[in-house]
Amino acid sequence: MKEGYMSILDSYTTTFGLVKKIDAFGYLDYLKQHPEEPRKRGKVLLVTADTPLKASRGEGKTTTTIALVDALRERGVDAAAVLRQPSMGITAAGSKGGASGGGKSSLSHPELIDWGLCGEMAAIACAQNLLVSFAEKAVDEGVLDTILVPRVSEVPSRSLRSIAVDFGKGTVPERVVLTPTCELMQIVVLSRSMDEISHRVSSMIAGTKDGKPVKFGEFVDLWRITNILADAVKPAKTETINGSPIYVHCGPFANVSLGIPSLVSVEMACAEHDVVVVEAGYGTDAGAQKWLDIAAREFGAKWPAAAVVVTRATTWRDDETLAWRYPFHVSRLESLNIPTFPLINLWEGEDDQVPELLEQAKSLGFRKPIVGNLFRDGGDGLANQLDDFVSAITDDVETKVPESRRGKTLRERINLLCAEAYGVPVERVIDKAGFADSLKEAQDLCANSGVIFDDLALVAVKSPATMTDDDHAPEDSRTVTLKKVEVHAGAGVVQVNLTSSLTTPMPKIV
Amino acid sequence: MKEGYMSILDSYTTTFGLVKKIDAFGYLDYLKQHPEEPRKRGKVLLVTADTPLKASRGEGKTTTTIALVDALRERGVDAAAVLRQPSMGITAAGSKGGASGGGKSSLSHPELIDWGLCGEMAAIACAQNLLVSFAEKAVDEGVLDTILVPRVSEVPSRSLRSIAVDFGKGTVPERVVLTPTCELMQIVVLSRSMDEISHRVSSMIAGTKDGKPVKFGEFVDLWRITNILADAVKPAKTETINGSPIYVHCGPFANVSLGIPSLVSVEMACAEHDVVVVEAGYGTDAGAQKWLDIAAREFGAKWPAAAVVVTRATTWRDDETLAWRYPFHVSRLESLNIPTFPLINLWEGEDDQVPELLEQAKSLGFRKPIVGNLFRDGGDGLANQLDDFVSAITDDVETKVPESRRGKTLRERINLLCAEAYGVPVERVIDKAGFADSLKEAQDLCANSGVIFDDLALVAVKSPATMTDDDHAPEDSRTVTLKKVEVHAGAGVVQVNLTSSLTTPMPKIV
Repeated sequence: MKEGYMSILDSYTTTFGLVKKIDAFGYLDYLKQHPEEPRKRGKVLLVTADTPLKASRGEGKTTTTIALVDALRERGVDAAAVLRQPSMGITAAGSKGGASGGGKSSLSHPELIDWGLCGEMAAIACAQNLLVSFAEKAVDEGVLDTILVPRVSEVPSRSLRSIAVDFGKGTVPERVVLTPTCELMQIVVLSRSMDEISHRVSSMIAGTKDGKPVKFGEFVDLWRITNILADAVKPAKTETINGSPIYVHCGPFANVSLGIPSLVSVEMACAEHDVVVVEAGYGTDAGAQKWLDIAAREFGAKWPAAAVVVTRATTWRDDETLAWRYPFHVSRLESLNIPTFPLINLWEGEDDQVPELLEQAKSLGFRKPIVGNLFRDGGDGLANQLDDFVSAITDDVETKVPESRRGKTLRERINLLCAEAYGVPVERVIDKAGFADSLKEAQDLCANSGVIFDDLALVAVKSPATMTDDDHAPEDSRTVTLKKVEVHAGAGVVQVNLTSSLTTPMPKIV
Repeated sequence: MKEGYMSILDSYTTTFGLVKKIDAFGYLDYLKQHPEEPRKRGKVLLVTADTPLKASRGEGKTTTTIALVDALRERGVDAAAVLRQPSMGITAAGSKGGASGGGKSSLSHPELIDWGLCGEMAAIACAQNLLVSFAEKAVDEGVLDTILVPRVSEVPSRSLRSIAVDFGKGTVPERVVLTPTCELMQIVVLSRSMDEISHRVSSMIAGTKDGKPVKFGEFVDLWRITNILADAVKPAKTETINGSPIYVHCGPFANVSLGIPSLVSVEMACAEHDVVVVEAGYGTDAGAQKWLDIAAREFGAKWPAAAVVVTRATTWRDDETLAWRYPFHVSRLESLNIPTFPLINLWEGEDDQVPELLEQAKSLGFRKPIVGNLFRDGGDGLANQLDDFVSAITDDVETKVPESRRGKTLRERINLLCAEAYGVPVERVIDKAGFADSLKEAQDLCANSGVIFDDLALVAVKSPATMTDDDHAPEDSRTVTLKKVEVHAGAGVVQVNLTSSLTTPMPKIV
């Protein structure tokens, strides 16, 4: 049997240098058309983390994901992982130079993942920028007067945050954002076929003419965009240094976008493996919230059978005023009936803290933490700690995806989000001056273009390092400020900028 | 024997989807280290063309190149071709949607070549933009005060010709150019190893501090740039629909840059095949001039054993005032001892013009033209016309590369170029106001950074559709105006903007 369905996947697989690329659209469609074909119904394990102390400091989610899949396979579980693709601009311009695990918890070719993979991010950048160029042409031709879609860059440059094009003549102010933050990236993450991508691109609001929204479908040949995307829609397959299968596809940022790999990459992995570890970006308040509330609730992704919340030994303990966050995340996920395992990713010299860490976790009512120096020991250090974890995911518990929230007003959904994911009740969710206008504008834009505003999935846009306006404040005075609303009609999402902190879709290089 | 050296190339070859990528640096280095290994010493055939009537109208060089290699192989000659990679932005935003031949003279996967190939162009764009970002950081840190390297875009947008970054704060004016025009593209074209690329990038002048030039090597970690370039330095191998081998690598524009594929792609092809057809962009005054005067004279590329000058039936005859150009090109190449074959690429409905075309060619003293509708008939239509051509290239004539012109003053070399390639004598080479200052500035920049100005290879920057300020003018009143000088110290070239026509490194989309 196994032989049989492996060869079907093979027929959708092509070698691209040191990785493989898989036509997930074609493969999943084949499985749909052939219900008699065997396939696995893998469970999703979500790897998420404590809210980081700052944006540039990771807790070790990718390292954990790699160690975990190696450890599970060492125990005989057919596990695989799905990672997001790091933004090359960030890895190339950043101090650490990579985002693909480390030490014994590494990929066999991390340099490929970190430095542009097979050009997926670049293709998405080109396609989004071509849309802007066609929008400019539409302005020249009187079809548009205002463009609402930003250009993107794969390389960070702070000076691009605010630019003027046609400088000295038209002098049109613009902003440039990093590729992982753009609507087209969201479309590739959420779509299940090239037709769906086409349809979503045609539904993107390009801009307005005399205040009335105009969609790209009204003036762009969609084949130009889908031709550019071509191989970029195909997940890549690589492996850990221990040979465990790793799929990599799409890299929307978790703080200002979806924070998850493509839906089809996870679905394909679930058809091939019993357990699929999915890494969702930044803290539980970011990528995990988005997997649960966007991917699963609104776009048909699997509800996780278990979750791992990664932290460093220091993150959740050193700043007393922030110590509430880690237990908050763990209990939030448990409250959703997701068996949630604390995982403490030790750094060198921290081994002697294990007893204290376990004690502290116990006093907080956590499940027994999984603890290890994953960089140094890899999956070997975890394998014998996974009994409870493996039980939790192999128990045949029916996991029911909570209901969609489409149809509720955006306000209602924002209030639910703030209460559930950030612990801030409705009375402390505050409108910043201008928010109501921005909301009204977004609603009007939708009304005028036939988009049902309350059916758009809510995407929180916020700093990765904070959940509220001031996480250091005492619980009963924490607030969330609502700043602005932006519609991505093609992706089918509405973005709401939250909290008073800065978001950085175009960070500084270091 | 053949088996033997094919397997060596194979060990430097990797599959990338529907094409192969070849580590040409590694392969050529291996051959250099192993003089005992058999290899071919293929002859280079240059395919060039009449100066087009406008930039967007091709004469059919790529179509000809493909037909020619198919025809030569049909005759039993071990031929291959090397093409430049089209700029995806242009093919995606252009009306024709492709630049890889057509009809029976097509590649087996033209869509790959036209739409980003394996991300080579995108990688070069990222690397060049990252250099600019690091230059900006150097400004913040007081290492630079003026940046001299432009950002690039893979997608055309006229509004990017003049932009301001950090708009509203610093408001720094910039220009953005298309990727195929940038210095990093030139560096990849001209380099024969990754070390050479590193060295050339480190020699690029990033900008100035208090008027003194500062090179990238002084503040950028070069591994960041070479990591991005990685697979982009490897030529791709594909084939025609008839199975003839075609290598594709690099795409510098011929009007404003080098106009030729990478040197290593041609050298690798010459080690594998007896005859290598090289396509050089735009007219004989552009890509061919650059192959001869830059690649061959200054960078060790092979002198062509023969040339084909492509024209349409109409181009060289319809406008009497431009009719001088085609014969000028043919006799210019013949005067360099390159057997030069006119090739007339017929369009539908033009077959009846053949006798007249042949007659006209005869009266001009040309070799017998090769004539065919290459789109309709492919190589089949050419094979039986190639007797003279095959004789010319298989004759064992010693082809001596003319001497380097390094060391002559830029003025001397410009005057030679204008006389030889455009037919304009020194007395009608005119300085535009400001040219002398621009020249002086470039010379000072070099003097202050240890670069020997007169050793830089001259790259003409001009409109693709004109050779002089007014090609319609009578011969004795044609002029060339010198507009400005720009040093690309890393690439080792000095660019001189010529003629009064507009160059368009950032064209309009259509």
